[in-house]
Amino acid sequence: MNSTTPMTPMTPMTTTTPTTTTRVFNFGAGPAVLPVPVLEEVQRDLMALPGVGISILEISHRSSRFESILAQAETDMRALAGIPDNYRVLFLQGGASLQFSMVPMNLLAPGSSADYLDTGSWASKAIDEARKVGGVNVAASTKADKYTRIPAQSELALDPGAAYVHMTSNNTIEGTEWKELPQVGNVPLVSDTSSDMFSRPIDVARHAIIYAGAQKNLGPAGLTIVIVRDDLLERSRSKASTLPTMLNYAVHAENKSLYNTPPVIAVYVLGLVAKWLMGQGGLAGIEALNQRKAARLYAEIDRTGYYRGTARPDSRSLMNVTFRLPTEALEAKFVKESTAAGLDGLKGHRAVGGLRASLYNAFPESGVDALTAFMREFERRNG
Amino acid sequence: MNSTTPMTPMTPMTTTTPTTTTRVFNFGAGPAVLPVPVLEEVQRDLMALPGVGISILEISHRSSRFESILAQAETDMRALAGIPDNYRVLFLQGGASLQFSMVPMNLLAPGSSADYLDTGSWASKAIDEARKVGGVNVAASTKADKYTRIPAQSELALDPGAAYVHMTSNNTIEGTEWKELPQVGNVPLVSDTSSDMFSRPIDVARHAIIYAGAQKNLGPAGLTIVIVRDDLLERSRSKASTLPTMLNYAVHAENKSLYNTPPVIAVYVLGLVAKWLMGQGGLAGIEALNQRKAARLYAEIDRTGYYRGTARPDSRSLMNVTFRLPTEALEAKFVKESTAAGLDGLKGHRAVGGLRASLYNAFPESGVDALTAFMREFERRNG
Repeated sequence: MNSTTPMTPMTPMTTTTPTTTTRVFNFGAGPAVLPVPVLEEVQRDLMALPGVGISILEISHRSSRFESILAQAETDMRALAGIPDNYRVLFLQGGASLQFSMVPMNLLAPGSSADYLDTGSWASKAIDEARKVGGVNVAASTKADKYTRIPAQSELALDPGAAYVHMTSNNTIEGTEWKELPQVGNVPLVSDTSSDMFSRPIDVARHAIIYAGAQKNLGPAGLTIVIVRDDLLERSRSKASTLPTMLNYAVHAENKSLYNTPPVIAVYVLGLVAKWLMGQGGLAGIEALNQRKAARLYAEIDRTGYYRGTARPDSRSLMNVTFRLPTEALEAKFVKESTAAGLDGLKGHRAVGGLRASLYNAFPESGVDALTAFMREFERRNG
Repeated sequence: MNSTTPMTPMTPMTTTTPTTTTRVFNFGAGPAVLPVPVLEEVQRDLMALPGVGISILEISHRSSRFESILAQAETDMRALAGIPDNYRVLFLQGGASLQFSMVPMNLLAPGSSADYLDTGSWASKAIDEARKVGGVNVAASTKADKYTRIPAQSELALDPGAAYVHMTSNNTIEGTEWKELPQVGNVPLVSDTSSDMFSRPIDVARHAIIYAGAQKNLGPAGLTIVIVRDDLLERSRSKASTLPTMLNYAVHAENKSLYNTPPVIAVYVLGLVAKWLMGQGGLAGIEALNQRKAARLYAEIDRTGYYRGTARPDSRSLMNVTFRLPTEALEAKFVKESTAAGLDGLKGHRAVGGLRASLYNAFPESGVDALTAFMREFERRNG
């Protein structure tokens, strides 16, 4: 036998022809809509990656093909966000909720404390987890205003000796976002960007750590991105004897996110989304699109006063547009009828009620038009 | 407008026709081969789940469709393994590596210690992580024999007061497996079954916790299954004030694995694999198939002495068949030529070298025939 001639015939696969499908407009807050060309590519190659003969659902994370998928995803993320060389990009699991613990477990030394900016339900959960680990100073909170706004710089009671400052760049449930980063001096800034990572340009160099669950703007559920500045990893290394290995940022950085098996298909899809983002003009291009989409929806909300935005205008999120109707009964009717009309996921978070339209990167402008048309018609019938 | 008539036309999708693909035989140790009918179903519905209009990569984990996918997966797992009612089935993230920490963090009280059975590289890693948390007694180790065998019951120096006993049911790297569960009296038995869960019947009631990364026999990478007996959750509850919420078994049990966003597509694929397993005659049926596959390969290994199995015969794994050739140069040649012949992933783990053929549930018998034919031919040419 000649070793270059396959002795075993490759198994030829008859792939099924996908049925023609009908897609609705998915306003869900996350997991959320992905670009159609990305889904099409996933579908096309689902049975076997071309030239590999193994599905992305089956491929070894130690294979050269997957290593190149991972490396390319990182390269494209670096290009998109201008991530400086002294930052690592980690592909982890567990969502932002696990980061709520990993951040203090890695960064908070015994006796030190961290500043937290309490701007919403998720920021508050981050505080609860940090308190299990060490000292927490709530340096600002808009809880008394039901988190309807972002605090002003003058409201921040920051501790110059804090181990870090933790913020939540976009508050998914309350529909607010930081328009500018807070001034934190030389204290490392840690930002939970789960619901707006890569929806607009970001000045990575002003952060020490940026993290996000991927399932809103970046990819499917099951993948967490952590961008961490090299010098912070020293804190993780100093805790190596007690910190669980899987929760140690330095371990993941040193192993290029392959300390153990990463969520392979989620990394692959994120890589396709990054390529798609580059085709949209990068983060500046997608920001322009996101601004257009949100402006159109807020304009409809503000048009007559029938709908009422819940966030203070200067704090309004481009990602999660939250609004109320005159009564809860009308809100229930709105949810039911919009769902029937192919506008899915508009019910607000159970913690706050009302309506929420999430307009992440991949959400199409045509969906915003469909929603505003529905809103006008609903108001006409129920005004 | 009549609210039952869609005002917004659903977006009709022209789905791409997948190209005909060529699949190789994937002997990888994990992530690993999945059943072709499962992949075909994933591909067919990738653009949008029928009747939902949203892809599995985009669907909300709070949607009724996903909740039913999750519930059905659990129901089918319970039926397959006969999981008693007093056990919870958790769908988590982080792999077995995170369980190495979660097990002691949840189960080990201050001042107590746990018994560990050291049967391989992964068992040893579990020990290292447990030592960061509390007391560890290595109740048996076959390290001096290079982990080529499973210890006998008489070798186990168990502590009747241990918080639990930790074992590794199948040792992926060394190619050994426990043929019978150890007798541990009333001490809770915790088993890492990452590489053999649902490859054979399992007496769940003799365990306190069974965990596994899904990416070998159960589904794609990014999902971890934990089956935990109710009474163990009390230990987690008693630690709630200090244990990170995401690492607390009781939290995940009480939230039915929806405390935060689970790895949605991985749960979906696992559900399809569970259905496929039922079609194979359940765990008894798949065990018979797995025994046939492994027996055929071990017979070829033992045929002339050219190949040499590394595990002691009474400890041989049905999942990971490890063997050597006369020289390392021949092993390298074997890997290169088998890969070219469409037999992928046969290189042994870098820690031990040699060859390894992983024959998980979905690995086809025809692939074993292809390998044994290749082995005979290779021996003829290089013997």
